Amino acid sequence: MKLPLVGIGSDVHAFAEEGSTREMWLGGVLFPGERPLEGHSDADVIAHAAADALFSAAGLGDLGSNFGTSEPEWAGAAGSVLLAEAARRVRAAGFEIGNVAVQVVGNRPKVGPHRDLMQERMSRAAGATVRISATTTDALGFTGRGEGLAAIATALVIPAS
Amino acid sequence: MKLPLVGIGSDVHAFAEEGSTREMWLGGVLFPGERPLEGHSDADVIAHAAADALFSAAGLGDLGSNFGTSEPEWAGAAGSVLLAEAARRVRAAGFEIGNVAVQVVGNRPKVGPHRDLMQERMSRAAGATVRISATTTDALGFTGRGEGLAAIATALVIPAS
Amino acid sequence: MKLPLVGIGSDVHAFAEEGSTREMWLGGVLFPGERPLEGHSDADVIAHAAADALFSAAGLGDLGSNFGTSEPEWAGAAGSVLLAEAARRVRAAGFEIGNVAVQVVGNRPKVGPHRDLMQERMSRAAGATVRISATTTDALGFTGRGEGLAAIATALVIPAS
Repeated sequence: MKLPLVGIGSDVHAFAEEGSTREMWLGGVLFPGERPLEGHSDADVIAHAAADALFSAAGLGDLGSNFGTSEPEWAGAAGSVLLAEAARRVRAAGFEIGNVAVQVVGNRPKVGPHRDLMQERMSRAAGATVRISATTTDALGFTGRGEGLAAIATALVIPAS
Repeated sequence: MKLPLVGIGSDVHAFAEEGSTREMWLGGVLFPGERPLEGHSDADVIAHAAADALFSAAGLGDLGSNFGTSEPEWAGAAGSVLLAEAARRVRAAGFEIGNVAVQVVGNRPKVGPHRDLMQERMSRAAGATVRISATTTDALGFTGRGEGLAAIATALVIPAS
Repeated sequence: MKLPLVGIGSDVHAFAEEGSTREMWLGGVLFPGERPLEGHSDADVIAHAAADALFSAAGLGDLGSNFGTSEPEWAGAAGSVLLAEAARRVRAAGFEIGNVAVQVVGNRPKVGPHRDLMQERMSRAAGATVRISATTTDALGFTGRGEGLAAIATALVIPAS
C-alpha cells in the first residue's frame, strides 16, 4: 500500500481599518457586523490555509504559484472557490484527499457557534472532511493585539491508485 | 483500509508578572524556580496543544468547546488531566490514537533535560506516543522577547474499525 | 500494518545587519544579493524545520539535542548536511520516511522561481520527498516587518518493518 503524504499551510490577514466596507468571510461563512480582513481576495484565512495545506501535501506549490499573477482570473475569488479548485487540482494530480484540519488563531470572530456551518461549507468545497478549531494567544503577538487573524492547517492525501 | 486523519493545534500563554505565586507546569512537569505562565488553568502549553491537535484530528472541536464555560468542572484542571480526557473523548468517538508530536517555542525553561519525563507523562495521559521537541525564535516575536511560551502540535488518529 | 507517525517542526532566524558578509541560504540554495540570516549555522530555516519535523515524528528529540553543544562537530554545518544526517538518524532508529512538507513564512526571498531547485536539494538530502511552499503575513509580526524568516514543517514516517 502506498504511504499517505502530509502537508502544512498557514495564512495571515490584517484587519481592515475602521469604516471599511469589506465583508468578513471566515470558513466560507459571512460574519455581518464583524470587523473585516484586508486582502485582494476575501481574506478567508481558513480557506486559504486549507488550500495551502492541500497543495503542500500534494507537492503542487502554494496559493501564490497556483492563483497568483499568472492566473488573474482567480484574483478576488472567494475562499471556498479557491479551496474547491485546489482540491480539484490535487485530485487531477493523482491524489485522494484524506482530511484537512485548520486552527484559527485570534480573538474575533468567535468560531464555536459557527463551527458546524464552516465545516460543512469547507468540506463541501474540498469534497473531503475539513475540521475547524480555534484558539487565542493570550493577548500576545499580532493576533493577541487584534491586528490580524491567522490560521494553520495540515492535510493528508494519498496516491489514488 | 481506512485512512488516518491528521490534526493540528497550537497554544500560547503569557508569562506571569514578577512575584506571581503560580506554578510553572510544562509537559506535565513542575518547574520550581522557573517563571510561571498566566492562565485560568495551569497554562501547560504542551498539554493544551496536544489536546487541541487530537480534537482537531477527530473533528471534536477544541479546548474551548470541550472544556469551556459550558463545563466549568474542567476550569483550572491540570494539563495532563485535560489531555487524558481529550484522549478519552477521541476514543469514545471511535478513533484509535496513533501519535501526537508537540514542539515548544520559547526561551525558557530548557526542555532537553526534562524531555524524557515530559514525554512519559504526556504519553501516559494520552495513552499513546507523545513526542516533545523545542526551539527558539532568535529573539524575535513575543516568544523571542520572553513575553510568553507557545506550542504547536500535530496528531494522527485512525477510525478504530 | 503499523501506523505512520506525524511530526512537526518550526524554525526562525533573524535577518543580519546591513553590511553582513554572511551568505543567504534557503532550502539548500544560495541567494546572492539577498539579505542573509543570522545564526551559528547557515540559518537555513527550511532545512532546519524539515529536520526538526523528522526528529519529531521519530521521537528523536530536536536539532538542539542532536546537533547542540554536545556534538560541536555539527556547529556551522550547512542545512542540507544537517537534514541528511537527521534523515540518517531517523532511518537508523527504524523508520522509513514518507514525506516532509515545509512552508516558508516571510517576505523575501521569493521562493517560486527557486522552488524546484530547493525541492530537489532538500529531497536529495532527506532521501525522501520534501515539498516547499511559501506565504507572507500581510505586514504583521516579525516576518511581516521583515525582521526575520520563519518556516513550519510536518513529516510522516512509518516503522520500517
